[in-house]
Amino acid sequence: MGNTQGDRGELGLLHKIRLRASQTPAPELRLGIGDDCAILRPGPGEEFAVTTDLSIDGRHFRLDWHPAESVGHRALARGLSDLAAMGARPVAAFLSLALPRDLVQKPKTRSAPKSAWPAQTTWPSPKGLESWVDRFLDGFLALAQEHQTTLAGGDLSESTLAVADVVLTGAVPQGEALLRSGARAGDLIYVTGSLGAAAVGLQQLTKLAAALKRPRPKPSALPGISPRIMALLTPHLYPTPRVAQGLWLARNAMATAAIDLSDGLSTDLAHLCAESGVAAELDAAALPFAPGATAAQALNGGEDYELLFTAPAAARVPSSIEGVAVTQIGRIVLSKRSNPPITLITSKGAVPLAPQGWQHFS
Amino acid sequence: MGNTQGDRGELGLLHKIRLRASQTPAPELRLGIGDDCAILRPGPGEEFAVTTDLSIDGRHFRLDWHPAESVGHRALARGLSDLAAMGARPVAAFLSLALPRDLVQKPKTRSAPKSAWPAQTTWPSPKGLESWVDRFLDGFLALAQEHQTTLAGGDLSESTLAVADVVLTGAVPQGEALLRSGARAGDLIYVTGSLGAAAVGLQQLTKLAAALKRPRPKPSALPGISPRIMALLTPHLYPTPRVAQGLWLARNAMATAAIDLSDGLSTDLAHLCAESGVAAELDAAALPFAPGATAAQALNGGEDYELLFTAPAAARVPSSIEGVAVTQIGRIVLSKRSNPPITLITSKGAVPLAPQGWQHFS
Repeated sequence: MGNTQGDRGELGLLHKIRLRASQTPAPELRLGIGDDCAILRPGPGEEFAVTTDLSIDGRHFRLDWHPAESVGHRALARGLSDLAAMGARPVAAFLSLALPRDLVQKPKTRSAPKSAWPAQTTWPSPKGLESWVDRFLDGFLALAQEHQTTLAGGDLSESTLAVADVVLTGAVPQGEALLRSGARAGDLIYVTGSLGAAAVGLQQLTKLAAALKRPRPKPSALPGISPRIMALLTPHLYPTPRVAQGLWLARNAMATAAIDLSDGLSTDLAHLCAESGVAAELDAAALPFAPGATAAQALNGGEDYELLFTAPAAARVPSSIEGVAVTQIGRIVLSKRSNPPITLITSKGAVPLAPQGWQHFS
Repeated sequence: MGNTQGDRGELGLLHKIRLRASQTPAPELRLGIGDDCAILRPGPGEEFAVTTDLSIDGRHFRLDWHPAESVGHRALARGLSDLAAMGARPVAAFLSLALPRDLVQKPKTRSAPKSAWPAQTTWPSPKGLESWVDRFLDGFLALAQEHQTTLAGGDLSESTLAVADVVLTGAVPQGEALLRSGARAGDLIYVTGSLGAAAVGLQQLTKLAAALKRPRPKPSALPGISPRIMALLTPHLYPTPRVAQGLWLARNAMATAAIDLSDGLSTDLAHLCAESGVAAELDAAALPFAPGATAAQALNGGEDYELLFTAPAAARVPSSIEGVAVTQIGRIVLSKRSNPPITLITSKGAVPLAPQGWQHFS
């Protein structure tokens, strides 16, 4: 499909992706890129978890803010985090890319990067004259390799807007997936890692983008990025999906329910409560704030990609799983029409906590 | 993710889709919409075929030309046709939708349809004040139901451009999928149905769109669409994927290779030859032209969604499969560096046939 010229560009890009994807494939992948479909077969006693995530310029990322490597990393991280929340082992990814033509072409000069990030800064480090899509694939495939995920297929099209849709397939022992719907009154609520780090990183990115827009005496006088700022940016630009922690929870049959924190604690806990038909109480003093995070960032900041899970009070949940801290932050209670779904217990009393999905580029 | 207002709209749409998707699910679908992932388990001795297809406004469809029902139907038909080409039985679909807000909202008046098609014409028949996305789902889910395909998940986002990405999962007995790579010299080449019908339909649609743009004495004086024109439009607006025929070919182990005609015969046969490492000869006189189709439309017209397959000369390929005609159109030959991949044999001699993907909206 598409016009002939576009198709040639697409075939060229497809060929390149096929070469780059031909790493050691997962044994579950019987047939990869190059036919009408990929063929996948779960291992004995296993079934597949499947998830789909859109990443759209101006909504989930900004071409003028995010390095291409980060866009690729984040597009894949969203789905890996969904697999983690089911306790599934990543197997195969499918990547549908709709891109403006200039993102597929090599940049004409080294000094004209597509993102606002100057090539002179140490972060990111554009490798000479790579196209945007090559750098997107760098970020995508590096994270895929880290999680033994094979790029098994997808679709390509020219477009006026940059859109990536990533499908992930993971394997999980039959009937052992961690669901959102299993939480019961009396269960305790846990979270991995810390809360609000991605929101802090986005705040830093916004500041940097504003600084880059200010008129400069000469083009070479670009703002440097200190290691401290880089450390703050990383959780937003290169989040770590908690795949190993999800696998540990499923293997140890420890969690009654789980969800990943993609939309923010207040929103995702509300989803879990709704699917389980329960309510929740959170202890404000127990919340593991990320360094520099405000209460709003910790409660409503999206894209932390930590795991939120529930376990019976009698379960021996460790204080860290596969190297990541685990914190008990509240408890599941009966759902009553008179009470809000989520209550935040503070030193000044109990307040209802409304789901407040994080304001994204708005 | 997404701003709060957008999220509310997305949650409302998600709820609606979840309700509409809750038809009888396939037994392979263990868990559908509502969790972090869907869960799929193939039947005993089966594996999954997976395919992904983008549909983008201005590239694969036009909001001002195509009825919303047709956009939904065509977005799903592309993937069903890929499954057909593997000999797979459709199981579950995943739908990622990125839509401008006005396509999700109900139209303010009956006389302001989003497509150029006036509500007064008999085709399509907008049901009162349905939103564009409701009508898209009408088309999508009607075809899904026809093929016992459950809508098992996806993603939703607001966007400045309308984009649908459809993932389809089908089941096929282990090791029995029809591949592109199995054609051997001496095999005969077959095609289902006729060639060029979708290109003829698009030509009619282009003419109608031009007619609708011309100034009219008064708004009510709209051009009618005759049954003859409607019949010509249908293969483009509502193509029929050859799922039953693909299943028959796999069940009878009749085909050595197969591909669906999505990009046009000249392009798709070139794909099959490249994957099989062979060349092909086509008999011009044998090609089953659709009524009104030119040679260019039959050879290069995309979106016919017929099956192109090869079988050994000794195979007893019937003249019709599951009610659809099957025509022998050529043969597979050895690939030689001195010869073109595809040769068209006409009454005036042999000419090389270059892959010429159909010019789409350009």
